[in-house]
Amino acid sequence: MKRALSVTREENFPEWYQAVVDQADLAETSPVRGCMIIKPWGWGVWELVQQALDKRIKDTGHENCYFPLFIPMSFIAQEASHVEGFAKEMAIVTHHRLKAVDGKLVVDPSSELEEPLVVRPTSETIIGDAFRRWIASYRDLPVLVNQWANVVRWEMRTRLFLRTAEFLWQEGHTAHASKDDALEETLKMLEIYRELAEDVLAMPVMVGEKPENERFPGADATYSIEAMMQDGKALQAGTSHYLGQNFAKAQNIRFQSATGELEYAHTTSWGVSTRLIGGVIMTHGDDDGLRLPPRIAPKQIVIVPMLREKPEDADLLAYCEKLKTELDGLSAFGLPVRAHLDKKPTRSANKRWDWLRRGAPILLEIGPRDMAGDNVTMIRRDKLRDGDKVISTGLAREQFLAQAPGLLAEIQKNLFDEAKARLDGNIRADLKDFDAIAAFFGAASEDDEKSGFKGWVRAPWSRPTGSELEAIEARLKALKLTLRNVPMGQGQPSGACVFTGKPAVEEIIIARAY
Amino acid sequence: MKRALSVTREENFPEWYQAVVDQADLAETSPVRGCMIIKPWGWGVWELVQQALDKRIKDTGHENCYFPLFIPMSFIAQEASHVEGFAKEMAIVTHHRLKAVDGKLVVDPSSELEEPLVVRPTSETIIGDAFRRWIASYRDLPVLVNQWANVVRWEMRTRLFLRTAEFLWQEGHTAHASKDDALEETLKMLEIYRELAEDVLAMPVMVGEKPENERFPGADATYSIEAMMQDGKALQAGTSHYLGQNFAKAQNIRFQSATGELEYAHTTSWGVSTRLIGGVIMTHGDDDGLRLPPRIAPKQIVIVPMLREKPEDADLLAYCEKLKTELDGLSAFGLPVRAHLDKKPTRSANKRWDWLRRGAPILLEIGPRDMAGDNVTMIRRDKLRDGDKVISTGLAREQFLAQAPGLLAEIQKNLFDEAKARLDGNIRADLKDFDAIAAFFGAASEDDEKSGFKGWVRAPWSRPTGSELEAIEARLKALKLTLRNVPMGQGQPSGACVFTGKPAVEEIIIARAY
Repeated sequence: MKRALSVTREENFPEWYQAVVDQADLAETSPVRGCMIIKPWGWGVWELVQQALDKRIKDTGHENCYFPLFIPMSFIAQEASHVEGFAKEMAIVTHHRLKAVDGKLVVDPSSELEEPLVVRPTSETIIGDAFRRWIASYRDLPVLVNQWANVVRWEMRTRLFLRTAEFLWQEGHTAHASKDDALEETLKMLEIYRELAEDVLAMPVMVGEKPENERFPGADATYSIEAMMQDGKALQAGTSHYLGQNFAKAQNIRFQSATGELEYAHTTSWGVSTRLIGGVIMTHGDDDGLRLPPRIAPKQIVIVPMLREKPEDADLLAYCEKLKTELDGLSAFGLPVRAHLDKKPTRSANKRWDWLRRGAPILLEIGPRDMAGDNVTMIRRDKLRDGDKVISTGLAREQFLAQAPGLLAEIQKNLFDEAKARLDGNIRADLKDFDAIAAFFGAASEDDEKSGFKGWVRAPWSRPTGSELEAIEARLKALKLTLRNVPMGQGQPSGACVFTGKPAVEEIIIARAY
Repeated sequence: MKRALSVTREENFPEWYQAVVDQADLAETSPVRGCMIIKPWGWGVWELVQQALDKRIKDTGHENCYFPLFIPMSFIAQEASHVEGFAKEMAIVTHHRLKAVDGKLVVDPSSELEEPLVVRPTSETIIGDAFRRWIASYRDLPVLVNQWANVVRWEMRTRLFLRTAEFLWQEGHTAHASKDDALEETLKMLEIYRELAEDVLAMPVMVGEKPENERFPGADATYSIEAMMQDGKALQAGTSHYLGQNFAKAQNIRFQSATGELEYAHTTSWGVSTRLIGGVIMTHGDDDGLRLPPRIAPKQIVIVPMLREKPEDADLLAYCEKLKTELDGLSAFGLPVRAHLDKKPTRSANKRWDWLRRGAPILLEIGPRDMAGDNVTMIRRDKLRDGDKVISTGLAREQFLAQAPGLLAEIQKNLFDEAKARLDGNIRADLKDFDAIAAFFGAASEDDEKSGFKGWVRAPWSRPTGSELEAIEARLKALKLTLRNVPMGQGQPSGACVFTGKPAVEEIIIARAY
């Protein structure tokens, strides 16, 4: 078989990533700076991610709603840390009319807004404003809402799915009567993100708390799931924030408690975005293109008839139509199997590679000989580069139908296991000090992205704060390293903090990151 | 029973509308001019509308995708009529940074964009730009895409759902090799909109072609579905446009035909929006609030236990839980029944009115006596104002379970039939000239919105164009009247045009409108 992509992961990982996005027909850049066009195949993946997560969000008692795209500038200024973190690079609407001058369109200066509007970079302030109106008594709590929306952050260096000016996400926002309730909510949604990443996207993650300097602006605690990409970098794939009473105090979100006192609510927020698709690409893609976990593959089983523009084609198509109907009647993962018959007039060999690059989990190529023997020829996308047994020929149709749901489950598991082995096998936990860590990662050269796989370091630390933490951050930054998170559920660490030499209180993940 | 709303339709229709939106907890105004907050109950309705339409869009071969929120100002200028129609009131992004000056946030003047960006009012131009890149040969056609998105039009006078600065919609965009193919697509989607309105929303519509002066800016033909509200006004509930080669020529969307020539593509676009929810309210609402057709009711059957804060409550709740589980196992309209058990500590009488105002189709009130007899007490929302038989008491639980899916279908049909009778019975087709029409509608006083039901007029006309049409429009406008559409499938009209006196070629609908 000919190779599908022009560049391998080892040759140049960033270029390989771009080639997969392009060749798998997931997305493309648009004429609007930093904004992407998500093409049907990429959108199909996102719809399946949305469905899986939306069900979990609703099953845990949250309700969807929708808040305005625009936020008055004065709202952004309400929460001090929030200003620091978000009031920088945003899209700002200042006028509301164009007019023609000498046959050219210009912004009409007379249409200037009294107060500029910011295109939402996140919605804590506009939703908090509604919470203030909605909440009067402890009986109104908890308020548990979520929205699926587009947000804009004016990023300077963009990369499709991973960092774009406009991106799509869900943002959950909740208000509670107590810190305990709000913390429980924060961790509940973190667990749902872990489940989404691992069970649906087959992307194993490290679940933990971000260090102080990496918190969401205005949060008392931020938790994340971090995934290991095939270049060893970490990808923050979802975050859940306990906002304490910070936003409640800034926005006057108060309630009368059961004992009659006025108290500030405790709020949370949590979100995942189209960035997850970037994570799927860099977790499962190979040098032939994308490999999609069956749960998020818009087409799980693709039938390609080997048409020859001859009269016999009609019989072959009828055989394939029947096969598709049979597959449509099957279930996998509790949902109908998504089968597709590719009847386009493209050459069959091109179709094969189109679907393999796109990552369809199972490809069935059906020629006259398959039909004659009531067989199918099957290609398993996950095994494509393993060499033998990639193509099963002469597989009885009946037998394939009986096995198909199980095969999809096996492919889902296989992709997860492969990624899980990579994650577990590439976390160095034996480095004792900063110099050893620096030596492990090597110099941060301009082209370090091409310099091969490094993995992560898990190291004991003393949980420094303030200026001590800032100094550590600066040292790490010079090596292009970052503190990712403090994994949950860890025991008492042994040894001294790799940064401060003080007794360690926990272990933290250090990595290069997207 | 006490009346649920403070104002009736007859007393003041616009105030009644606002009261329903508010009291049924559908949406509220936001601190951002013209933008609404869609609350969970309203959003739940929209999700069901989306699901029903999305399935039909996909079943007809379209694929979903996503295009940028922003459109470069120069794109808007590409299609001349489009500029006329859309380049007026839009949200314009001119800067990308805020900065603090003397402790106050201001727009950073140094962050001015080289080219202003418009927040999409509709996406023909940015999607056409992609079509130009995607389409090379007739083999690439048709291109059939759709997106679910938010759009912004800077409206001066807004009303929740009906006219808001930001609204949510789907916009389909397609490109074809021939005029015939594109026209077929335009009418296919129009038919899907009719089906959505009538079969899903239970909202009967008049399907027809808009007159020349009401076309989408840049279209060769615009078709619409028009619904009759309970104040007699027309609501344009969906449009489908044949754009001819206008956008293709403006944007250079060309393909090589089978015979090797370069030709311009024929494009279409079509959309429906959250405005549909306004249509549902004004079609089905009554003086007690909203009545939801079961197909779009987020909760179809709501169980209210008559709790008394006594130990017996536990048994009653167990009875209700079991009932809910049984209802969850039923199907209606090919989907699982959406049942809800309201366990909130609110007083039962308040709950009754909460759910009736929200329009839940069936309410089950369960007290100790119902439980003792293994019965339910049922309130049918659609019959609430009919007087007798509203409440069925002593209905055996088993019997109700057996009847529930059929009852939901009956309610759906009942709401449609009621609205259909109103539409069919209130179109005057016997008025012979403009004066008779003017007399029928009466003066356009400031408070004509409160002046009672008028209905529509269907009148023969000669299909005038250009300045002749403009003059007619002006006369109609003085009476706050508009030309709605020319109904499809009509025969040869009799008589003379009510406007020009020339022989009529078809009949057109005249009405006051939203």
